[in-house]
Amino acid sequence: MSLVVTGSIGIDTVKTPHGVSENCLGGAAIYFSMAASFFAPVRFVGVVGSDCPFDLAKVFAGRDVDLKGLEIRQQSKTFRWTGTYHEDMDSRTTDSVELNVLAEAPPSVPEEYKDSKFVFLANTAPALQQQLLEQIDKPDFVAVDTMNLWIQNNLNDLKALLKKIDCLIINEDEARMLAIDKNLIRAGGKILGMGPNVIIMKKGESGSIMCNNEDQTFMLPAYPATNVKDPTGAGDSFAGGLMGYLAQTGKTDFDTLKTAVAYGTVTASFTIADFSLGGLTAIGRPDIDSRLETLRELTIF
Amino acid sequence: MSLVVTGSIGIDTVKTPHGVSENCLGGAAIYFSMAASFFAPVRFVGVVGSDCPFDLAKVFAGRDVDLKGLEIRQQSKTFRWTGTYHEDMDSRTTDSVELNVLAEAPPSVPEEYKDSKFVFLANTAPALQQQLLEQIDKPDFVAVDTMNLWIQNNLNDLKALLKKIDCLIINEDEARMLAIDKNLIRAGGKILGMGPNVIIMKKGESGSIMCNNEDQTFMLPAYPATNVKDPTGAGDSFAGGLMGYLAQTGKTDFDTLKTAVAYGTVTASFTIADFSLGGLTAIGRPDIDSRLETLRELTIF
Repeated sequence: MSLVVTGSIGIDTVKTPHGVSENCLGGAAIYFSMAASFFAPVRFVGVVGSDCPFDLAKVFAGRDVDLKGLEIRQQSKTFRWTGTYHEDMDSRTTDSVELNVLAEAPPSVPEEYKDSKFVFLANTAPALQQQLLEQIDKPDFVAVDTMNLWIQNNLNDLKALLKKIDCLIINEDEARMLAIDKNLIRAGGKILGMGPNVIIMKKGESGSIMCNNEDQTFMLPAYPATNVKDPTGAGDSFAGGLMGYLAQTGKTDFDTLKTAVAYGTVTASFTIADFSLGGLTAIGRPDIDSRLETLRELTIF
Repeated sequence: MSLVVTGSIGIDTVKTPHGVSENCLGGAAIYFSMAASFFAPVRFVGVVGSDCPFDLAKVFAGRDVDLKGLEIRQQSKTFRWTGTYHEDMDSRTTDSVELNVLAEAPPSVPEEYKDSKFVFLANTAPALQQQLLEQIDKPDFVAVDTMNLWIQNNLNDLKALLKKIDCLIINEDEARMLAIDKNLIRAGGKILGMGPNVIIMKKGESGSIMCNNEDQTFMLPAYPATNVKDPTGAGDSFAGGLMGYLAQTGKTDFDTLKTAVAYGTVTASFTIADFSLGGLTAIGRPDIDSRLETLRELTIF
């Protein structure tokens, strides 16, 4: 089934204890699309400035990623992010952000994308996410990412958006902040009460927890990683693997969602093994499938 | 098979956001024995002072806990611990400790216990743990708990002990500290290189990871708890359920260890639902078995 993503394209500079990657390709829509393309065709919506040094047609060559929704805006500059990961590789500091084109009007969704059934709205201001969502006719399953900034500053917009979506994919600390509850399981329940049918809470190296509004819960550890070079894009790769698998199957029942979370988990485990897209471009779908089986063996008793 | 535990008996005062429990029964050997007694007979080794207000024969009445190894030392005072849990219930501050009888010579292991096959040495100075271990003739499986204090101050003693045991059960932060490695999976591998065949690293509300020296790994989330009243004793209840199940089956292969970790996990989930032993005394083995099946369903995909 058709899958559309809206989100950022960035010029990233990432510093980790393992090295520095300067001015590399990043952004939520980029990681998401690369990850999802192992599972299903992806319709891409994003905007860059005329300074963007990357040829996305080349980046996605040989993959079923439709770039009709890529806008190159003249007189604008591309989003830039610089960050430093600490020694535990699970926490990071943002050194600088230049929103640039992301502070302007969002790109528009091409006419040909409006019949998309699976929708991922990557992290941006919730009012913009809602504008983008309104351009899709009748989606079957809408998943959304958000962050602490919007929970603190744009809570009403976010709450309005939550009433219109199916699934919120969020970090554990953000879930606690949004629910105002330190207990993650209770926080998940409270957020389900705000609108979505499904919430997936990401716990970094400790995996994820998914709950739905029928009182079903699924918990999955992260794939055990001894080689973490750069965690940037892990969350969007997780969402990409997850949504890609849902779009591939066309299903959203809880059992399918469980497998989708597992696919998201292993897809992200490849992303963090190298800088930028290096981890994902080095592999094929059989590598992902094989790691999924390993994860199953690692967690069954 | 026979199971012996050596460890503390304490008079605890615990403050949590849910209330205060003053001068209640605590200590590692107490929680361990209560938890393990659902699975197998327990041989108890511990010492209190003449001020101890608890009648352990009554506490363990109706349970197969042998108190021949309980020493009531005249002119000594019982171990006391006062602690406060913070709002997230995953971190705590020790407000005061009175080691009292724990700072004296350890109790001796009764002659009748010396043929014990499964041994749990609860947290204390590693030199004392080794003294206790030397009193067991030919154990099949020795598991040990330790803490940051001994890693920092008694590292040589701890390393000597690690060469003589089968399994280390340790908190994730302590594993990172002992291995001097922020990556938990790598840390586990390094600790296995110090001697034990199995390491189990506890991650609080994020579950646990077990690795052995044949490169096998098992990861299990914690049982999802919305009602956490008092986490005191969770780690020792985990060890009790785990070692109790091993002693019940008499096996220590990796598949049995996986199920043992799951039993430890669900046993601990009852402990944290009430103060002191209230969570464990309110249940029976069928409650534990039922929650084990729930945990299996929550984690399978």
